[in-house]
Amino acid sequence: MELGLVGLGKMGYNLALNLRDQSYTVTAYDVNHDAVKQWEAAGGEAAGDLHEMVGKLKAPRHIWVMVPAGEATEEVLDFFGTHLDVGDTVIDGGNSHYKDSLRRAEKLGEKGIRFVDVGTSGGIEGARHGACVMAGGPREAVDPLENMFRDISLPKGYLHTGPSGSGHFLKMIHNGIEYGMMQSIAEGFDLLEKSPFEYDYENVSEVWNHGSVIRSWLMELSQQAFSKDEKLDGIKGVMNSSGEGKWTVETALDMQTAAPVITMSLMMRYRSQESDTFSGKVVAALRNEFGGHDVMRKE
Amino acid sequence: MELGLVGLGKMGYNLALNLRDQSYTVTAYDVNHDAVKQWEAAGGEAAGDLHEMVGKLKAPRHIWVMVPAGEATEEVLDFFGTHLDVGDTVIDGGNSHYKDSLRRAEKLGEKGIRFVDVGTSGGIEGARHGACVMAGGPREAVDPLENMFRDISLPKGYLHTGPSGSGHFLKMIHNGIEYGMMQSIAEGFDLLEKSPFEYDYENVSEVWNHGSVIRSWLMELSQQAFSKDEKLDGIKGVMNSSGEGKWTVETALDMQTAAPVITMSLMMRYRSQESDTFSGKVVAALRNEFGGHDVMRKE
Repeated sequence: MELGLVGLGKMGYNLALNLRDQSYTVTAYDVNHDAVKQWEAAGGEAAGDLHEMVGKLKAPRHIWVMVPAGEATEEVLDFFGTHLDVGDTVIDGGNSHYKDSLRRAEKLGEKGIRFVDVGTSGGIEGARHGACVMAGGPREAVDPLENMFRDISLPKGYLHTGPSGSGHFLKMIHNGIEYGMMQSIAEGFDLLEKSPFEYDYENVSEVWNHGSVIRSWLMELSQQAFSKDEKLDGIKGVMNSSGEGKWTVETALDMQTAAPVITMSLMMRYRSQESDTFSGKVVAALRNEFGGHDVMRKE
Repeated sequence: MELGLVGLGKMGYNLALNLRDQSYTVTAYDVNHDAVKQWEAAGGEAAGDLHEMVGKLKAPRHIWVMVPAGEATEEVLDFFGTHLDVGDTVIDGGNSHYKDSLRRAEKLGEKGIRFVDVGTSGGIEGARHGACVMAGGPREAVDPLENMFRDISLPKGYLHTGPSGSGHFLKMIHNGIEYGMMQSIAEGFDLLEKSPFEYDYENVSEVWNHGSVIRSWLMELSQQAFSKDEKLDGIKGVMNSSGEGKWTVETALDMQTAAPVITMSLMMRYRSQESDTFSGKVVAALRNEFGGHDVMRKE
């Protein structure tokens, strides 16, 4: 099978290598010429731009888009919406919002172009050696791709999740769960750090990964992190996020569903991005106003 | 090695079988005579009461106590405090509060009796075929037991956690993390259930277990649960707890440490135990008082 691949970033490049290992012919393009050159130097097929990609691929074309969610994805899909033929298929493998995917599936569908929204998990290592692939889209769009999805996934790591949007929705919820699990693990280690005991966190993560109820890949990653820096002294506790946690919380609000732990995990990330808070000043000021309690003065 | 074992409940009985498989001679006792008979029928050594157990074991004795935390553990340890000899060792393998373990280690230590506090994880299956063992206590108490702890654990599933109390403290934090991870997973599935899509949760858990970031034993257990009852229709959403989550939150309060996700997970368990809430009535009444908003009347 022949595939077009737009986007040779960390995920896309490793996906390209994975696809090639599985005997797929990948014609790749990236706005970053160095990435394209690297791919060509590795013996890969490349296109100089999206027009050339469309020309190089035989219909029906299958094009995997692996570019940042938002504007970049929108532009690429707009291009394909006007330059692909009836029966061609576009796969969005990025972390797009499921509502965008619903809209794009409809818009492309009006032109007879098939659209599959794919959530991928497992990081760079997964993209390279076996990802977790959640694909949403109608049967006629997904069926011709299923062997390929299975080939690049871990065994049992591929699922057709349902109609358009369901792949990206499921990936979004996956990331929301990830926020809560990470915050819970983090709070546990924080309590150990403030305890009267002196634990070795690498050893703790290791023992927890062998037979305990909380054994998990995230705990394996904890072990790996503590093995490099036993108290994480080299890292500031600032927790950034890429948007999927926020979308999960917005979705909970849309559905008027209580998801307090996932929400709190997101809020704790925001809190971590401020070294002082206005809310803290307000509470300190009010305690001072009503009770004369000391406030800490800025230097 | 010869061991005494007090408590043939689900955990204790499986631990006894595990120990026997590893060629330990286990002399067991339980207040429940049926459990003792079952153990004898399986070819195990038994004692009719704690006095007999002390008499049957050769000094220095090693006695594993696996009875419910709290009063039952207190009584058994009190007995051993007055009936064991200098150099004997008592292992508390239950879910005791670490402060109780600190107190007991000191009290038994005054009589020359060694005490080891062991947190065990992995459930019944772990007790039977390889547990996760976190042992706290002084070197001289733990060292003679380390081979035995390793024998009944999964490979790398044993850790000497530090001085007395540190085993039970670590197990408590483990359970606190477990609360947060479970609540996060649960909220994720709740959002899927309320989504516009129709997911098969067994398939979702399965794909998430193969290559995703949230792969974990808890997600494997989710898959197992959904395979038995695809929408969990047979189960009420009442979440009980056994106390360790509460202790984790109390510990966070003692240490004045923010652990909002673990705390919220516990609070959501309490919420689930009420079918209606007084706080809900209060808010509904206040909305009615200030804004004339409708309240839902009881039938």
